[in-house]
Amino acid sequence: MESSLKDILPYLVRFENISRYEDGEVLIGDRSKYPFERAFVRCGDVESVAQAIEHMVTQGSGPRHSAVYAMAMVARQVERREPAEVLQHLEAARARLAATRPTNTSIARALARMMAVAQEALACEMPLEETLLQWIDKFFKESYDRMTTVACLGADLIEDGDGILTMCFAEAPFIMSLAIAAHQDGKRIRVYTPETRPYLQGARLTAPSVHELGIPVQIVTDNMPAYLMSQGKIQKYFTGSDLVTLDGHVVNKVGTFQNALAAHHHGVPYFAFSKGPDAERPDRASVMIEERDPAEVRACRGISTTSDEIPAYYPAFDVTPPYLVAGVITVHGVLSPYDLRRYYQDVSSQEER
Amino acid sequence: MESSLKDILPYLVRFENISRYEDGEVLIGDRSKYPFERAFVRCGDVESVAQAIEHMVTQGSGPRHSAVYAMAMVARQVERREPAEVLQHLEAARARLAATRPTNTSIARALARMMAVAQEALACEMPLEETLLQWIDKFFKESYDRMTTVACLGADLIEDGDGILTMCFAEAPFIMSLAIAAHQDGKRIRVYTPETRPYLQGARLTAPSVHELGIPVQIVTDNMPAYLMSQGKIQKYFTGSDLVTLDGHVVNKVGTFQNALAAHHHGVPYFAFSKGPDAERPDRASVMIEERDPAEVRACRGISTTSDEIPAYYPAFDVTPPYLVAGVITVHGVLSPYDLRRYYQDVSSQEER
Repeated sequence: MESSLKDILPYLVRFENISRYEDGEVLIGDRSKYPFERAFVRCGDVESVAQAIEHMVTQGSGPRHSAVYAMAMVARQVERREPAEVLQHLEAARARLAATRPTNTSIARALARMMAVAQEALACEMPLEETLLQWIDKFFKESYDRMTTVACLGADLIEDGDGILTMCFAEAPFIMSLAIAAHQDGKRIRVYTPETRPYLQGARLTAPSVHELGIPVQIVTDNMPAYLMSQGKIQKYFTGSDLVTLDGHVVNKVGTFQNALAAHHHGVPYFAFSKGPDAERPDRASVMIEERDPAEVRACRGISTTSDEIPAYYPAFDVTPPYLVAGVITVHGVLSPYDLRRYYQDVSSQEER
Repeated sequence: MESSLKDILPYLVRFENISRYEDGEVLIGDRSKYPFERAFVRCGDVESVAQAIEHMVTQGSGPRHSAVYAMAMVARQVERREPAEVLQHLEAARARLAATRPTNTSIARALARMMAVAQEALACEMPLEETLLQWIDKFFKESYDRMTTVACLGADLIEDGDGILTMCFAEAPFIMSLAIAAHQDGKRIRVYTPETRPYLQGARLTAPSVHELGIPVQIVTDNMPAYLMSQGKIQKYFTGSDLVTLDGHVVNKVGTFQNALAAHHHGVPYFAFSKGPDAERPDRASVMIEERDPAEVRACRGISTTSDEIPAYYPAFDVTPPYLVAGVITVHGVLSPYDLRRYYQDVSSQEER
């Protein structure tokens, strides 16, 4: 099943299109231009990768994907120097990359693991770039296996005839779960994607990806989900998650929370795909919500939506409390948001389990 | 107070900028271009007025405002003909104009009253255009007086320090209530306006109008209201209404409902300004929700938000049930949505009362 799944996956969720490593440079799939262009941003240094992440060239899993390759790039550039100096450069890269998006901590966690791998490689005098690239391959292979596991769990939650709401771009786990439900299990489903202002990930990334799978999809504006539910069009609500706290708060693209409120009101269960909670984020108070440049709210694809002098406000994420979450879809199963601690409290082993 | 209020009202809510009648033509303030241009669309026949309304050149109270002038224009064009023929032309104009926006029935109600005035004028051999223009003047004067009354009621609901959420462009009653609360009563308030996709009425019309009053305002995208509430930024939620049913359902721009759900969840009271319910709309089942061209959802100010082949869906309004409505602000006071029938059941007198 795994190989057949890979064959039908849409353009955007294929690993090589998220980002790739070529001749010591990081190529980042430019999601800000999709579906109008299939372009890549080529980065030859850490600062370029960091700025590409900050400027939303990529998003979702893309920042982590690009950041780990950036570490390999640094290793290549400095590996002939003294070990202490090499580590200094890697540490500077790690700090710069981890700071790009403060809400989603999975970048920082992956980079922390890479630093440990790098230290070990240096101690054992192993070739640094090669060792890091091998680690990345293994990391992505495991990541793909985990995604397949959660995608199957997601597909099982989908019933024949379901209308499915999502938000932003929930990427491979969601897209794969739709593919399994529709193509493997033959379930007839419809998908509704709010456009997800201001960056339009729902309109630009999710809808074309679902459309590419041949599954019926409709874009709506972000003010329509509750109306769709009131019309009986929605049976399930699925999103990704940028962060899940140990006590079951789901942090995701702003709008996820108000859709979850509307879903709760209409008896529609809400499920969030998760890599697992961040064991260093015990609760809501420990979450940092990224606030971005208000100018981004005053524009849509570069076109002003109002006069320049009008103030705006741009919190990029929101927090959905556990009582609105029907299940967190993880490699361990569809867990109650109140039961995450039991699986994930041990920080050191959380990514492996 | 009335005259001082008129002096500070922002550009968009001044009657002469909504639409006006000049030399037998209807000039419609082009809200689709505001705030980038202060333009008017000049219409010399009913079809042009109808299409301007359908194409969202104007919205809110604008369609009714433009439609009553269109009737005077028709009267001028046909008043030398036989009374039966004159009535035929007026009736054709009435039917065309009333069909432009099926959800908001206030256009149809105003035009029905004009038809009665026209019949009486013809029976008494009074000059038709002049009689209708006099009726319009009186109608607008009464309308302004009613708006002032409800704006004062709205202002009384606002407390010093309030953060106020709105949706779409709630026009004169809302803007006037802010002006009274801030400038007359000295209350310090902040306003948050969701941009209101796809037409951006919140970003383009509401935010500049509030800014013009010198009241702090911030635009957010339509996926942010619940997050604002979770941060304690919102104390009151006010909107206009395109229609209120006799049993207290508020029909307004899509998104109003999901904001009301979020408000209810956060203990934020929701108030809707209303001209009074439509006595021929007893309940939710009697409401027709306009569905517009999906292509409008796939674009923002003429720029595509996704590929052209991706389907979209565009319900233009939604319905907020009475249990989410803290009060309907009418000339009779801030009424419980469950107590509207007592004031408004008599169809014939509803606009006058």
